[in-house]
Amino acid sequence: MKVGGQHFRTIWLKPDDDRVVQLIDQRFLPHQFVIEDVATVTQMATALRDMHVRGAGLIGASAGYGMFLAALEAAKSGSFDRQLESAAARLNATRPTAVNLAWAIERQLKSIAAGKTAEDKIDIARQTARQIAEENEEQCRMIGEHGLPLLQEIARNKNGQPINVLTHCNAGWLAFVDYGSATAPIYAAHDRGLPVHVWIGETRPRNQGSKLTAWELGQHGVPHTVIADNTGGHLMQRGDVDLVIVGTDRTTFTGDVANKIGTYLKALAANDNGVPFYVALPSSSFDWKLRDGSQIPIEERGADEIKNADGWFDGRQVEVCVAPAQSPAANYGFDVTPRRLVTGLITERGVCKADEKSILLLFPEHAP
Amino acid sequence: MKVGGQHFRTIWLKPDDDRVVQLIDQRFLPHQFVIEDVATVTQMATALRDMHVRGAGLIGASAGYGMFLAALEAAKSGSFDRQLESAAARLNATRPTAVNLAWAIERQLKSIAAGKTAEDKIDIARQTARQIAEENEEQCRMIGEHGLPLLQEIARNKNGQPINVLTHCNAGWLAFVDYGSATAPIYAAHDRGLPVHVWIGETRPRNQGSKLTAWELGQHGVPHTVIADNTGGHLMQRGDVDLVIVGTDRTTFTGDVANKIGTYLKALAANDNGVPFYVALPSSSFDWKLRDGSQIPIEERGADEIKNADGWFDGRQVEVCVAPAQSPAANYGFDVTPRRLVTGLITERGVCKADEKSILLLFPEHAP
Repeated sequence: MKVGGQHFRTIWLKPDDDRVVQLIDQRFLPHQFVIEDVATVTQMATALRDMHVRGAGLIGASAGYGMFLAALEAAKSGSFDRQLESAAARLNATRPTAVNLAWAIERQLKSIAAGKTAEDKIDIARQTARQIAEENEEQCRMIGEHGLPLLQEIARNKNGQPINVLTHCNAGWLAFVDYGSATAPIYAAHDRGLPVHVWIGETRPRNQGSKLTAWELGQHGVPHTVIADNTGGHLMQRGDVDLVIVGTDRTTFTGDVANKIGTYLKALAANDNGVPFYVALPSSSFDWKLRDGSQIPIEERGADEIKNADGWFDGRQVEVCVAPAQSPAANYGFDVTPRRLVTGLITERGVCKADEKSILLLFPEHAP
Repeated sequence: MKVGGQHFRTIWLKPDDDRVVQLIDQRFLPHQFVIEDVATVTQMATALRDMHVRGAGLIGASAGYGMFLAALEAAKSGSFDRQLESAAARLNATRPTAVNLAWAIERQLKSIAAGKTAEDKIDIARQTARQIAEENEEQCRMIGEHGLPLLQEIARNKNGQPINVLTHCNAGWLAFVDYGSATAPIYAAHDRGLPVHVWIGETRPRNQGSKLTAWELGQHGVPHTVIADNTGGHLMQRGDVDLVIVGTDRTTFTGDVANKIGTYLKALAANDNGVPFYVALPSSSFDWKLRDGSQIPIEERGADEIKNADGWFDGRQVEVCVAPAQSPAANYGFDVTPRRLVTGLITERGVCKADEKSILLLFPEHAP
């Protein structure tokens, strides 16, 4: 999407050196727009673990490019396969919840295995990384097309008033390669002239909502308002939310949705107020093996993120302490919204109910 | 309660000059413990509006002392009554949601009216302010006594494991004159040797949870863990919360509960997971006129509180920006939890269900 009028993706190969990956280092947004060169597996593992890149789709795309870097390094080592496996394990260990990470790494391992020579394997890895990114982009575009009618339907009863969408965290283009998942129907509606307004929960502790979603919607010209995470329920009680759309880091084939911590609370409020609650996802975010959402591993991050707030002060990014130095803190990254609270899933193949039968009807190749 | 081993209340008359009120300026907690001298109505109105003092009970006590300062000023003016009425209106306008504000001011106006001379009126105002504060303290102590059995009951099934209580915002002693409302049963249990652990939602945007509740529980030695506001639902899904206790800024006589924004979301999660959800309040926080919680006025505060986070950095308190400079933000201070989600109310007269009949049975003097 647009940044200062210019089109950007979140990750790409460096134009003048295709052994180097470039990505938007999202840690500095919205205050600074920083592009990072990533030339080694170690750098990519750091970028994943320390969240220079984050978001379901972009984690997958970054892992794909990370495996390309792994192939480059493996070719220089004595034993290609052992080196590649070791790099795969290192990348895999960076983030435990996002299913796209393991999915992209596994896809690369399978593809690369078909190569005869090291040179061959590198070409395959580069090609596969590009494919993963391009498929991600196309899937997000299609999520926008399939989600658009939901907003058009609401617009018909709004008499020209803005359609109020609430979202949580960043499932925008910054979380994918382009378009985003939750934001794709919003961009599709906005670009076609429908009046859309987005409520953005700030998404403590890392504020991906106020820092990333607000920034990307603002850059693209979509009207929006930042709110505290506590506010979603009150807005729904007032009738100020027509539709909730969120992303997901992993959704079971039965429709249970792991997403950024706090999603479950907004789903409860939507349910309590008769507000439709949709989850937008490319099929790579489905876990085709897991039946029960309570089995999804939930990442626990450092207490510092809770005890501090990271922001812009006096021309630089600093962390301020918002709790007593002695107080312990707990930092769970995700929660699981049970399928009974999900109105529907918006996928690249269409919209379906959040249940096994409906999901497998759209994706029959994953039926047992 | 204890601060650094010494007993403090939140507000009192200056020992060597009883025309001056002293209070803990809570804006600097947990980083600095600041005591402020308040000698004029203007200073008290500022302390209320800018939240040097906050919390249902303390707002009432501060308004009581504010009216004492108003009586002092009125005595110096040409027309006592007009001056007093004008001060009452100024104090009343500082915070729209807390019912204790209007309640304390009205009580003072009635009491002062009985005085014959200006000197007489000042004495009455001083006496009434003290009474309001002392009653508040005693009510909170009794809330602790009546809430304690709820925790003792849970302890019986925990086999020595800590009782996990979740709270939101600060309904601690800092929000009252002493003991607090939501914290009173916690302090009562802790002081009697029951193992209690408290989950504290940080309570964005002003972080009264991570800044005030964590500080006061820490000073008193109560085990606790700070969490993001998004986390309460997940903890309840995991079975890590035995009981929710929150305070309230205004509760209708039918049991609808206005409290810090986000309370409604935690009530929904408690309901969804079979966790008891209690609201602790002195009877001064009941609105005996209002039947429907949706009629409670909800304070809207400045967008800056959402776009910034206020914390400690490099030896001083600073505000860091956590959103794009251009993005709008909305800042609703409270939400209303409907009575159907409230397991019970803990008052100074005992515990009752959150319905009109049960409430009026405990407070028959307010029956129509």
